[in-house]
Amino acid sequence: MLLEKINSPSDVKSLTLDELNTLSTEIRQEIISTVSKNGGHLAANLCVVELTIALHRVFDTPKDKIIFDVGHQSYVHKLLTGRRDNFSSLRKFQGISGFPKRDESEHDAFGVGHSSTSISAAAGIAAANLLSGNDAYTIAVVGDGAFTGGMIYEALNNCSDKEKLIIVLNDNDMSISPNVGAMSNYFSKVRSSAKYFRIKNGTKRFFEHIPLVGNGMIKLARNAKNGFKRIAMSQNFFEQFGLNYYGPVKGDDITHLERLLTEAKDDKKCSVVHVCTTKGKGYAPAEEHPDIFLGVSGFDIESGKIKCGSKESFSDRFGKMICDFAEKDERIVAITAAMPDGTGLSEFSKRFNNRFFDVGIAEEHAMTFACGLATEGYIPVFAVYSTFMQRAFDQLLHDAALQNLHVIVMLDRAGLVANDGATHHGIFDSAFISEIPNVTFYSPNSFDSLYECFDKAIKANGPVVIRYPKGCECDVNNFNKCDGFEYLDIGENVKNAIVTYGRLTDNAIESAQICKEQNHSVRVISITRLSPLPIDELIDKLNDIENIVFAEEGIKNGGVGQRLCSAMAEKGVLKNKNFKIKAIDNIFPQHGSNDELLDLLSLSPTDIAKELLESEGKTL
Amino acid sequence: MLLEKINSPSDVKSLTLDELNTLSTEIRQEIISTVSKNGGHLAANLCVVELTIALHRVFDTPKDKIIFDVGHQSYVHKLLTGRRDNFSSLRKFQGISGFPKRDESEHDAFGVGHSSTSISAAAGIAAANLLSGNDAYTIAVVGDGAFTGGMIYEALNNCSDKEKLIIVLNDNDMSISPNVGAMSNYFSKVRSSAKYFRIKNGTKRFFEHIPLVGNGMIKLARNAKNGFKRIAMSQNFFEQFGLNYYGPVKGDDITHLERLLTEAKDDKKCSVVHVCTTKGKGYAPAEEHPDIFLGVSGFDIESGKIKCGSKESFSDRFGKMICDFAEKDERIVAITAAMPDGTGLSEFSKRFNNRFFDVGIAEEHAMTFACGLATEGYIPVFAVYSTFMQRAFDQLLHDAALQNLHVIVMLDRAGLVANDGATHHGIFDSAFISEIPNVTFYSPNSFDSLYECFDKAIKANGPVVIRYPKGCECDVNNFNKCDGFEYLDIGENVKNAIVTYGRLTDNAIESAQICKEQNHSVRVISITRLSPLPIDELIDKLNDIENIVFAEEGIKNGGVGQRLCSAMAEKGVLKNKNFKIKAIDNIFPQHGSNDELLDLLSLSPTDIAKELLESEGKTL
Repeated sequence: MLLEKINSPSDVKSLTLDELNTLSTEIRQEIISTVSKNGGHLAANLCVVELTIALHRVFDTPKDKIIFDVGHQSYVHKLLTGRRDNFSSLRKFQGISGFPKRDESEHDAFGVGHSSTSISAAAGIAAANLLSGNDAYTIAVVGDGAFTGGMIYEALNNCSDKEKLIIVLNDNDMSISPNVGAMSNYFSKVRSSAKYFRIKNGTKRFFEHIPLVGNGMIKLARNAKNGFKRIAMSQNFFEQFGLNYYGPVKGDDITHLERLLTEAKDDKKCSVVHVCTTKGKGYAPAEEHPDIFLGVSGFDIESGKIKCGSKESFSDRFGKMICDFAEKDERIVAITAAMPDGTGLSEFSKRFNNRFFDVGIAEEHAMTFACGLATEGYIPVFAVYSTFMQRAFDQLLHDAALQNLHVIVMLDRAGLVANDGATHHGIFDSAFISEIPNVTFYSPNSFDSLYECFDKAIKANGPVVIRYPKGCECDVNNFNKCDGFEYLDIGENVKNAIVTYGRLTDNAIESAQICKEQNHSVRVISITRLSPLPIDELIDKLNDIENIVFAEEGIKNGGVGQRLCSAMAEKGVLKNKNFKIKAIDNIFPQHGSNDELLDLLSLSPTDIAKELLESEGKTL
Repeated sequence: MLLEKINSPSDVKSLTLDELNTLSTEIRQEIISTVSKNGGHLAANLCVVELTIALHRVFDTPKDKIIFDVGHQSYVHKLLTGRRDNFSSLRKFQGISGFPKRDESEHDAFGVGHSSTSISAAAGIAAANLLSGNDAYTIAVVGDGAFTGGMIYEALNNCSDKEKLIIVLNDNDMSISPNVGAMSNYFSKVRSSAKYFRIKNGTKRFFEHIPLVGNGMIKLARNAKNGFKRIAMSQNFFEQFGLNYYGPVKGDDITHLERLLTEAKDDKKCSVVHVCTTKGKGYAPAEEHPDIFLGVSGFDIESGKIKCGSKESFSDRFGKMICDFAEKDERIVAITAAMPDGTGLSEFSKRFNNRFFDVGIAEEHAMTFACGLATEGYIPVFAVYSTFMQRAFDQLLHDAALQNLHVIVMLDRAGLVANDGATHHGIFDSAFISEIPNVTFYSPNSFDSLYECFDKAIKANGPVVIRYPKGCECDVNNFNKCDGFEYLDIGENVKNAIVTYGRLTDNAIESAQICKEQNHSVRVISITRLSPLPIDELIDKLNDIENIVFAEEGIKNGGVGQRLCSAMAEKGVLKNKNFKIKAIDNIFPQHGSNDELLDLLSLSPTDIAKELLESEGKTL
């Protein structure tokens, strides 16, 4: 196997074209095989095999820096940069991350995960090189989907033509779901301009076949071609930002790719190289359904059948629920930032197409756009992953909450997200949403509770945020319902309580059962309204309790535990009680299964039980 | 006076051209006079007088919605929409806001303050109108400076040509400081294309002079002009986003403005109208120095001399300090998001020009760009107002903190910002910065402390944020210095403490003096390191204290008070103490002087003293 001999990018540089084609095939097999077992991003990686090889042949990492936007497409890069032997640990606990990571390799120039950051980071690196006189190149590999995110334009606006900065536009006409909006239309116009393609290649080939003319002549040809291009296309987006533009070139043609990248390199200016790739390239099921094979939890290679969780998830249930509500209430409209499938909005998008808005990877715009809809009496429901909502913090605060507009944010993937890891955990929302005035903030633990919260949200007057995890509901059928929380006594004459919210309710129940086995009764309280917190009602329910452990699958600073604890202290009701908070304390958890991560974070059922027993001077 | 007769936009519609010109002059006088006394935004308002009049003649608010981006330029609109009589209360406590505000008038369609939100909000309103069959127009008035912000592109990417949405590009070649970047260059190319201007106007005039041909012919002419335009300009940015483009037109020509706006209106499609205005128009000192007259605290009309605070501000001191450090350390580079003057970086920008980066109104990019610089060994210092840093929350978290990169954020205008009001108060940073792992977070109360914090920041290994208010240092010369905080006993045998940080230290001292007059000694503690909090050291210093009041010029939920209180409760050291938090509790404070606002928020020296005495069962 050729791939086994590739230990660093320099090994790729010496291969013949035939060997490169063989290597491409082997890389595809390796990625398909690993992702089928470990889950991960398939379609985006299969489409950049030749591009990544070409990049590593033309440029020299780690001196030159390659930054992969979002990072969905970095597996090929990982295989070529010394991580082949560990590749089977992809996305596993303490294994290779699914995203580029500076800690993992000197070839990973910049960590990514959230979209549209690559050109900003690359511009910073290129500016540094210009200042220090370092002649290295900086390359940002950006999918066309990332061009729906505003940071790309902020960065383009700040690229200096003195910088050795090359932007590779990886144009596969997909962001996460099929790409939307005006930029997508523009790219597809460029792509489909067959005439332009022909003129371009024809001119080029003509000059290349004149011996001894070489590069100078090719550049002269470029100027000539600019004339053709203006006629053929009449406008070019990137040139308006003052960037050189090369392409489009087909993404599976290593020779052509290398030639164009070398040209851009030799120009020593800020350039865009437009590469047209095919998502899922080389694996038929992924080529046919690139949206499904974007991120998968595993699949059968032979049939292309995806492994699915058999249980209904919160996203599934929300997707059904919003359709039921929308059927009866025409004011309800739904918004997604390029995630109709992930957030459960696929069905809504089909049934209520004119009330559905996919705005691209543009959380900031999504939130303010929702506010505009709300001022006209619609009830916009923006479904978004918790981690991506960090992007729209200011818009929720400044546009929605300050004006007390009736918008609903459905925060999916709240809490740990397992194997996607550090860039994707939704562990900050409990803190950053709670501090915004006027926002009502719910954390349902079951589908019934999700329904109730959503029903209240629809009937509310101001902004409402509802958070729920990736995965299934908790078993709280036998809980007592109160306004803003639920509780259950496990044992009698309880003097201990575990207070929590959301998915961790299941762990709390398990902890309580462990305690009960040690003859310690426990009251489990699961808060459903995080903000405003039902302080007085909670204090009432904690009145006879001596030891309280607050368990939180979120960041400790600014979290719900601190709010409850300090509210009780301020009211003077903690004087004869112990109060301990178990939460994620000033660290970014890495990737792994949720159970592995909860163990690491000391939030497993045993850990919580231990903490409670220690309050009583006992050990488990 | 003509202006006295304008009580609603309909009164403007009936005026003759001569009267409109008189009205323009009167409006300018009214604005110059009021801003000279009350402070506010001058240059931006003077440049949109004719444009705003034309908008109100062509469109019908409140049915049609006009949204002013940032809102710096909404005074003319306020004068024309029934707020003339109260205009003298501009920016004063309980007076008219300096920004559009939905609560204030039905003509204020959408509240603004932070840049680049207008097209998103307008797109939401236009989408709502399309859904409901409402035939109203939505107009976003956007300065060219706002085009350095990414949300604009996210919104442009989502404008549908079916919507009656008109984007007025108010092009004055300034954002807040002179505009930067590729888009600015592009606009100036369009503006300065005299040839294009001539062809355009010539064609138009030609057709207009043919009697009985009318609008249809003008539209035909437009198509012809598109051909000319392609030749003259060869590319048009907005048309790539699928928008109709009208202009450029001179911003002081009401007739021409009305004609172009009417054309765009009649097209009933999503359009851009490009208007070239002059900042400060009609007041010579503001025309000459539009950057200085952007936002002023008052000035002498005759001489144009600005009223300045005589005392050195934190921004001033930081500006000097970073130059001193940069002189000795070549790794230090500075970044601003269009605020070199406001953040004190003017001197740096002149002395270290190649190490200075003004990235435009692009906080998200600024932060990630800083991260790129940091990976190459530079020490980027991003100076930004606290309220605008809300925009870069995710970038600080996901790009800087997660990778533990050595970047420094100087958070200016932390705390209340007086008359700019609700959209601009920097009252959330203590919460949202503290919850991010790896970030060291300082709040100096004096210039000496600012120096120490900055020195530590330069020597640090990870991200550091330093917050300070608009205004001067506190008087803490006689305080005892500890690691992470300072303290002073006012009186002997202290059993009471006021704990605070930043500017409120002065109020705390005053409170303590009030208490002392009532024979209650008080320890004043001013925390300088908010994160990680020096918990053990603080507990040690609060050991013998019975009553603690924590005073915070920031939001209560997630704030420093809750963190300290819950940490003490967890450690069981509150059992024999009272702990009260006085902070901004779940509201957005409006505009007014800081003293007025602190009174309203119950954070005045007397309020804090009262709280402390009440803990002892006493009243003041």
